[in-house]
Amino acid sequence: MVTLYACEGSGNCMKPWLAMIQLEQEFELKIVDVLNGEQKRPDFLNLNPLGVVPFLVDEADVSLGESNAMLWFLAEGSHLMPDTAAERAEALQWMFFEQSKLEPFISPARFYSFILPDQREAHSDEISHWLERARPGLERLDTHLGARMFMLQSGYSIADIAIFGYVHVLHEAGIDPADYPMIERWISDVTHTDKFQPLQNLGPSNAEAA
Amino acid sequence: MVTLYACEGSGNCMKPWLAMIQLEQEFELKIVDVLNGEQKRPDFLNLNPLGVVPFLVDEADVSLGESNAMLWFLAEGSHLMPDTAAERAEALQWMFFEQSKLEPFISPARFYSFILPDQREAHSDEISHWLERARPGLERLDTHLGARMFMLQSGYSIADIAIFGYVHVLHEAGIDPADYPMIERWISDVTHTDKFQPLQNLGPSNAEAA
Repeated sequence: MVTLYACEGSGNCMKPWLAMIQLEQEFELKIVDVLNGEQKRPDFLNLNPLGVVPFLVDEADVSLGESNAMLWFLAEGSHLMPDTAAERAEALQWMFFEQSKLEPFISPARFYSFILPDQREAHSDEISHWLERARPGLERLDTHLGARMFMLQSGYSIADIAIFGYVHVLHEAGIDPADYPMIERWISDVTHTDKFQPLQNLGPSNAEAA
Repeated sequence: MVTLYACEGSGNCMKPWLAMIQLEQEFELKIVDVLNGEQKRPDFLNLNPLGVVPFLVDEADVSLGESNAMLWFLAEGSHLMPDTAAERAEALQWMFFEQSKLEPFISPARFYSFILPDQREAHSDEISHWLERARPGLERLDTHLGARMFMLQSGYSIADIAIFGYVHVLHEAGIDPADYPMIERWISDVTHTDKFQPLQNLGPSNAEAA
């Protein structure tokens, strides 16, 4: 049995959570209240010295950080993993792109705009900077999605889940998704994939006590 | 035949280059002079719209950005790829860690300290900031390497090559590797792996015209 430690509202935590739901894989969800510092409690640090979520543990002694590495682990041998070496590499390319060109900018802008909106004013210069830095990656993504329904030609995969985590909450970071019509179309298509669940459902009501 | 577009002195470019050498895979190296903006020339942008190196193209119509995705593509089925799903996921975890906790800080600090040293003074505040942000990841890495010879228990792999790219040039970024004795020991061990070649050998004298 896999246990996923996650917090509410996180695009990174959504990734392994959604993958396990869409793969119909049984798992236990434990919510870590990061706004109250639970990820720095000794019992969690003992599990994950980096003190961050998501974190995934399975019976076979796998302890894994990094949301996109979790996606790979969960999807090996499944329909969410591309069949060819070329497409597996392309999936990884987009997953690294997501972590370097999108997440580092969308995530903090959204944090101070949406998760802690009373801190928005105090961080307005940084937010502007982050949003500006997110734009080139979003433009590249919009162009890419203009030529195909999902990230890879062969169809919906972990590359879509990786990108979706933060890109589907662009509006909460302060970017109008209508600026990127192909991204907006793709967000809708992902929400119509089989067994899709929205980020709002990742929460204590679906979890065990951490 | 694989063609690798790379620039001199780049830790990211070193990764696929070293992997192909250690895998004894034939490839063509084309040097892109990024300091003179060759990566923004129309012919290169036509190949890679992001205008960055490294970039890898193979006959089978694979065009790949992101150094760590290239490592995966090159190593599938080889002795540089871990045998088990658990270790493959652990390798990827460290490869994402490298791109989020190390490279974004070591690379720009080194750029303005070593590649363009006449700009060091003008960027001294940013350099201090980057070096400070690199330290937690380096501490985590040092602890990890205190318990094993290479990144994975099973031995030398693409995870080592990914981390090595920028970590072996820490001193050029302004961090004394002696601060991290386990990292220093591991750097030496990597340089003694079979067919290892140093970053200095990645240059025009070993390349075709771009």
